[in-house]
Amino acid sequence: MPPMKRIVMKFGGTSVASPAHIRDVAAIVKTVWATGVDVAVVVSAMGHETDRLDDLAQTMGTKSGSPEYDAILAVGEQVTAPCLALALQEIDVPARSWCGWQLPIMTTSRFGTARVESIEGQGLIDDFHARRTVAIVTGFQGIDAQHRITTLGRGGSDLSAVLLAAAIQADRCDIYTDVDGVYTSDPRIVRQAVRLKTIGFEEMLELAALGANVLQARSVNAARNHRVPLRVRSTFKPDDEGTIVSGILTQTASSDEDPPMELRKVTGIAHERNQAKITCRNIKDAPGMAARVFGPLSEGGIIVDMIVQTASVDGETTDITFTIPRKDAEETVDILKRNDIPESHIIVDRNVAKISIVGAGMTTSAGVAATIFEVLAERSINVEVISTSEIKVSVLISEDYGELALRALHHALIENGA
Amino acid sequence: MPPMKRIVMKFGGTSVASPAHIRDVAAIVKTVWATGVDVAVVVSAMGHETDRLDDLAQTMGTKSGSPEYDAILAVGEQVTAPCLALALQEIDVPARSWCGWQLPIMTTSRFGTARVESIEGQGLIDDFHARRTVAIVTGFQGIDAQHRITTLGRGGSDLSAVLLAAAIQADRCDIYTDVDGVYTSDPRIVRQAVRLKTIGFEEMLELAALGANVLQARSVNAARNHRVPLRVRSTFKPDDEGTIVSGILTQTASSDEDPPMELRKVTGIAHERNQAKITCRNIKDAPGMAARVFGPLSEGGIIVDMIVQTASVDGETTDITFTIPRKDAEETVDILKRNDIPESHIIVDRNVAKISIVGAGMTTSAGVAATIFEVLAERSINVEVISTSEIKVSVLISEDYGELALRALHHALIENGA
Repeated sequence: MPPMKRIVMKFGGTSVASPAHIRDVAAIVKTVWATGVDVAVVVSAMGHETDRLDDLAQTMGTKSGSPEYDAILAVGEQVTAPCLALALQEIDVPARSWCGWQLPIMTTSRFGTARVESIEGQGLIDDFHARRTVAIVTGFQGIDAQHRITTLGRGGSDLSAVLLAAAIQADRCDIYTDVDGVYTSDPRIVRQAVRLKTIGFEEMLELAALGANVLQARSVNAARNHRVPLRVRSTFKPDDEGTIVSGILTQTASSDEDPPMELRKVTGIAHERNQAKITCRNIKDAPGMAARVFGPLSEGGIIVDMIVQTASVDGETTDITFTIPRKDAEETVDILKRNDIPESHIIVDRNVAKISIVGAGMTTSAGVAATIFEVLAERSINVEVISTSEIKVSVLISEDYGELALRALHHALIENGA
Repeated sequence: MPPMKRIVMKFGGTSVASPAHIRDVAAIVKTVWATGVDVAVVVSAMGHETDRLDDLAQTMGTKSGSPEYDAILAVGEQVTAPCLALALQEIDVPARSWCGWQLPIMTTSRFGTARVESIEGQGLIDDFHARRTVAIVTGFQGIDAQHRITTLGRGGSDLSAVLLAAAIQADRCDIYTDVDGVYTSDPRIVRQAVRLKTIGFEEMLELAALGANVLQARSVNAARNHRVPLRVRSTFKPDDEGTIVSGILTQTASSDEDPPMELRKVTGIAHERNQAKITCRNIKDAPGMAARVFGPLSEGGIIVDMIVQTASVDGETTDITFTIPRKDAEETVDILKRNDIPESHIIVDRNVAKISIVGAGMTTSAGVAATIFEVLAERSINVEVISTSEIKVSVLISEDYGELALRALHHALIENGA
């Protein structure tokens, strides 16, 4: 890689949880700054401060979506940023804090889940040129055209960092967090999981969407769209290389010295518990029936994932099966009932887990799918639903076998280098 | 008084200390708003939130005067304002919060003690006209020409309220606090102290400067300059009339039914403990010697109050006595020593109290001074220093007799209606 000239560093809530943590972050920033690169830092609120503010706002009797709610939620970062600026000044690094409105970061007026429309980075760049001043920017927030404070929703600080990196043409955006990178699977479940040295944007997107907790899909998507390489690394092990998310090939950390010329077939395996399976039985097999099921759900904001339709023996009715977030199960049933699907025809199964195998190197999903069926069959695990995309195969199984399946598939597809 | 059209209501930290307190404040605001007046509310940070932020900023290693310090300190009000807006919306009163930067409130760049240069009130007025929206404005803060957040120093929220009232041509500024008005003396010491129904700006200024804790001199001065009548009243007894501070005559609350045509001679008596008396003995009685004492003290930021110079018997040397804030005693001695006044010639007396009698109706201070000497002499209390201004007589006495003197003077000058 060519030498870096400018970098955005983002620190989450656990990284800035206390004054001592903030001083540690200042030391990390100084190390990077001392190498001669321009540094902009994006910070989250300290520890659980946003949750506290959220509780306070709820107590005052509001639902999210109100500008007043966003104004309350946004102050957490407005404390962290000047605290970090002070900590840097204490160790002789020129630094200044910026609120979203000071840059400004302009957003839509969709309070609570605003979309960033533009970021003006010239103030930061002028400061870089004048005195190599480190810019500390409040994550998670901006202002709308009426100059009211908006927030970007959960994980918004990562997004702020990525978009700021794009705005100031940074060479990279480093996301410092409490994990040390992206793993082939959840190391708490799969002991053999290894850290990836690099991963492609698309694969990271799939893993993020599957709840891999490291990065949110929204931020990865923004990074891909703006061609901003990300590095996920640990605040608590700052010398550790972490995982680079970019447009280049996926590698595991262990392949450091001898990078493989060939792409790995499978990059990661994710495991999602918070799913429910809904089956609507004996739906009349006529045009428009599927729309009658999924149209109202979409309008109700229910995200439907895997869908399978099976023709019945008589050819006149059909069963439709799909998955939804578990928390939406009751509402889903309500919506279906309101749309003339009798309750007796609706079956809800909360005891399911989704296992997803992600890899840009799966030239066709068929080979991987075959291995999946084989591995699961050997252990008598029934595949209830399967869905495939170009770089992903997902299977829905009984939750009872979730962890067993995850380990078995990791062994077959990653440890054995399938 | 003519009917009011527009009012500013200011609530301090104890009035908004919790969500429940904020709901109580919302109810008070609604009562006023329901009478048909336009309402702007200025709020402080909740409870001791500013102290907490101050501690945090200090922990990060800064002295006040830094823009980062102000950015941290200012967030307290930025939470209260939207919380109150939400509480008002909950009880069907249209309301919106405004940060200092949103109006904007423009200030100098003297961080920590910024001076307000202008307040743009048109946004609030437009809202009044459109939907009778209550405006909730963050006290204590503004922005400078570089759009950095500034704070106005202790008591800054009162000042924000007064200046906002001037900016939007409000008929009055009501300061809601944890006391129910201005008293003729400290009720904790003088049981017979009565609440004043009205008090003049100048007298209030003197009492405020003497630490009468209700209002800060800075806010009273601003109210006088902009001709904004103030009302000091209790958040916890909102039906209570409180005390009006204005350009009109001083009255006690008890004189309600039959307002006296004649002005009271003495409005209030204040008692200040945090003083020290410095005597410099055997100073050469030559031109420029006083400057040698007071010049360096002024440069050192020491506020010198009462000054007495007594010629010595030999006519060649003189004793200079003056009072200073007790906390500055050591620094004062250091400064004097550095300016060639030998330590042996400096006498520090920390055991002093200042009693001040304030009243615009004292046509000359001589009569009051005579009564003071008489009352104190009867009790064998020695007057160490006396100083007079047009509406004030102050005496310095031994602190041991402070409360006794206060009660005796209150009895002679106020209860007996001198």
